[in-house]
Amino acid sequence: MIDYTASYTDQYEISMALAYFQQGNAESKSVFDYFFRKLPYGGGYAIFAGLDNLIDILENLKFDDNDLALLKKNGFPEDFLNYLKNFRFKGNLFSSREGDLVFPTRPVVVVEGNLIEAQVVETLLLNVLNFQTLIATKASRMRMVAGDGKLSDFGLRRAQGPGGYYASRASVIGGFHSTSNVRAGRDFDIPISGTMAHSFVQSHDDELTAFRSFAKAQPQNCVLLVDTYDTLKSGVPNAIKVGKEMEDRGEKLRGIRLDSGDLAYFAKVSRKMLDEAGLDYVKIAASNQLDEHVIKTLKEQNAPIDLFGVGTSLVIGRPDAALDGVYKLAYANGKPRIKLSESISKITLPSKKQVYRLKDENGKWIGADAVCLEEEKDIKKMHHPFEPDKSMEIENYGKEPLLKKTMESGKRVIERKPLEEIASYSRERLTNLPDEYKRFINPHVYKVGISDDLKVQRDELVNQWSKPGK
Amino acid sequence: MIDYTASYTDQYEISMALAYFQQGNAESKSVFDYFFRKLPYGGGYAIFAGLDNLIDILENLKFDDNDLALLKKNGFPEDFLNYLKNFRFKGNLFSSREGDLVFPTRPVVVVEGNLIEAQVVETLLLNVLNFQTLIATKASRMRMVAGDGKLSDFGLRRAQGPGGYYASRASVIGGFHSTSNVRAGRDFDIPISGTMAHSFVQSHDDELTAFRSFAKAQPQNCVLLVDTYDTLKSGVPNAIKVGKEMEDRGEKLRGIRLDSGDLAYFAKVSRKMLDEAGLDYVKIAASNQLDEHVIKTLKEQNAPIDLFGVGTSLVIGRPDAALDGVYKLAYANGKPRIKLSESISKITLPSKKQVYRLKDENGKWIGADAVCLEEEKDIKKMHHPFEPDKSMEIENYGKEPLLKKTMESGKRVIERKPLEEIASYSRERLTNLPDEYKRFINPHVYKVGISDDLKVQRDELVNQWSKPGK
Repeated sequence: MIDYTASYTDQYEISMALAYFQQGNAESKSVFDYFFRKLPYGGGYAIFAGLDNLIDILENLKFDDNDLALLKKNGFPEDFLNYLKNFRFKGNLFSSREGDLVFPTRPVVVVEGNLIEAQVVETLLLNVLNFQTLIATKASRMRMVAGDGKLSDFGLRRAQGPGGYYASRASVIGGFHSTSNVRAGRDFDIPISGTMAHSFVQSHDDELTAFRSFAKAQPQNCVLLVDTYDTLKSGVPNAIKVGKEMEDRGEKLRGIRLDSGDLAYFAKVSRKMLDEAGLDYVKIAASNQLDEHVIKTLKEQNAPIDLFGVGTSLVIGRPDAALDGVYKLAYANGKPRIKLSESISKITLPSKKQVYRLKDENGKWIGADAVCLEEEKDIKKMHHPFEPDKSMEIENYGKEPLLKKTMESGKRVIERKPLEEIASYSRERLTNLPDEYKRFINPHVYKVGISDDLKVQRDELVNQWSKPGK
Repeated sequence: MIDYTASYTDQYEISMALAYFQQGNAESKSVFDYFFRKLPYGGGYAIFAGLDNLIDILENLKFDDNDLALLKKNGFPEDFLNYLKNFRFKGNLFSSREGDLVFPTRPVVVVEGNLIEAQVVETLLLNVLNFQTLIATKASRMRMVAGDGKLSDFGLRRAQGPGGYYASRASVIGGFHSTSNVRAGRDFDIPISGTMAHSFVQSHDDELTAFRSFAKAQPQNCVLLVDTYDTLKSGVPNAIKVGKEMEDRGEKLRGIRLDSGDLAYFAKVSRKMLDEAGLDYVKIAASNQLDEHVIKTLKEQNAPIDLFGVGTSLVIGRPDAALDGVYKLAYANGKPRIKLSESISKITLPSKKQVYRLKDENGKWIGADAVCLEEEKDIKKMHHPFEPDKSMEIENYGKEPLLKKTMESGKRVIERKPLEEIASYSRERLTNLPDEYKRFINPHVYKVGISDDLKVQRDELVNQWSKPGK
């Protein structure tokens, strides 16, 4: 839906590219890490999403004529513009699998390429991955508490403009089963769903006429919104009337939707009214400012709700609304690189790295990932990245490498997976994560450690660069 | 940049359209109001943005072959799909001027059209206007406190995916002067700006070499990031060295950027160091988690910062991240319509309406808008919309009509305005709003009232529809 060109970036990426170009340094190999520092929503994990879109965009990325015209107008020199005309991303991408659980500090994606290409794609990569990871994680929190209830994304109207398009996709990765967003449904092959609006009822002279008309239009998929006038006195009785009329025609009313008031109470009473009318097959959908916390209490109250329609809080990832993912240089011009900071937790990890998920002898996750230099073998120990006194032996744990090559020389080298397969992988991975990491309040902290060799290299670089006047 | 088709909507809009189609009711005239109920950020006003994009999208909106194929797959009948094939938005749009200040409860945009077209565009309209209004308002809050400092949008990397594209546009309407987002700059004619990243400095063996290289690449626009190693011991001294070298070449260092630490302190010391080196023309830019509150304290501390680069909090509209704008039916099938609610503040206003901004004899805003039936003349009184006892005489005030026809029969009938003109209109309108409405803490509440005739009509409809069994 979106015509990405290489100008989908920050101006400074192109300024820096020019400097590299002028240095004759365009082809120098570099490595950048994508990672984040803080889990969203105060939760215990995040779900990595957006990779497949990123690969598609990178494979086709170029500066078009309008991009080049703008850069010319902004004073970029002719020889550089000629270089950009032929610019393509020819780098390698090493990445966690889309849908996997990811944690702070450790690289989630590693970009290896020349300095220009790796720099030009920074903003784009962050823009795509930060947002979808934020939303997939939010969706997963609702999935976790919704029991056997289905979840549908109703958020496009409150989404951050076209951000809603990718929010619908990411929500499926996190466990939603459908979306109201027709365009996203179309492009990402997500089941589309929806009911009716108050305006439909209001446009008729009475509710019953509106319901009858809708049932005629949607005999297979008739979900009636029952709260326009009075849920229990008018909406549900009229829905029952129409449901019985549909039975007479050999059709079945699919559901009713509650959109205001005390959803738990209304769901219970409506369920009883429907059942007593012999409409026990009619489902109950609920919407109105839902999020994981509201859904959790509805389930705890045994509200008989079959489908939760979630809008704003899902598609904007409330309350965080942004993931703080960053993209940091780890290697350039033949040397490992770090960024210093007054705060040790903001000092970056040098060199090209691999990340391993640790498992016990039964294959069970122990709740820790180890970050190592790429070439390291037989890793015996890992250290807390910021607290020098903390370390643990990891020699005897199973080690699943998490970063796999997904692009080589600018071309996709992993298979494109259907969204449902990404979602099911995510579900499987989440099953492996012990419950204490999944709770909303003070979840267990998943450990991320760094290997001996990586620690030694980082500490040496810190020493070397901390001398003033460098 | 975005290929909007009519499937950029919620599934239920199309289901309802089908029902109207089958009723033979497709051509029945309807009126919908776009309005919101709560000002964002606890502030005293909102800035309306997104209109120009909305008009462009609506003028060209249609279901393409892929849309129709998906709807067919989802069971929509052939005759209806044929109708949709020729679907165009042929309605009228009445709207506040883009950039104007808008307030809760009163219609900001009125859509008049047949039930199908007015319903199909609902989601799109909300998606476009809610988000840009949210961001323009956020930007304006920063503009208000930034004094003579310039403001630049640096947010694309943390934006909600492609939402960042429109965030850059909306931020200009709210008073930003540039963006780092090259694509938005290109398409919306916004000045692009940027400095350099830490990775550029890190990729070199020392900071001074990095600065020299950047100065060569950007002799006209060299802004050096000074906090990679040590701001005051390394970054600023190296920047001064390069600034003096540039002077020797007849060039001028444009600025330095502070991106961490105590920005107020660093700005003061850096300013002194630069001045003492004879580089008093070198500007100081600051970034790092800025928002209106941080900028306000920086100004209160007299931090000599010339440009504020604002990222996340701007482009996601933190902390609200969504505007609760809604789209409600006011007229259909020959009758005014309302939506009831248990809460009187959620009962909608019937009929096609006009909104007037009230002014005293000197043309000064009195801090109130009056919502009236469209045809009403000589409006004498307005009532609080939800508190029956509150009313005020408004006969003698000047009344500026706020809703103007912007589309007629699906075509734009207002001139397209350059973004800068929309921004300058917004600035002018903001000047008219007394200061007490602009403060961050407990701002004065702008009054929105409804006319006698509108109140009578609404109250009658409430009575009529509140009878159970309707």
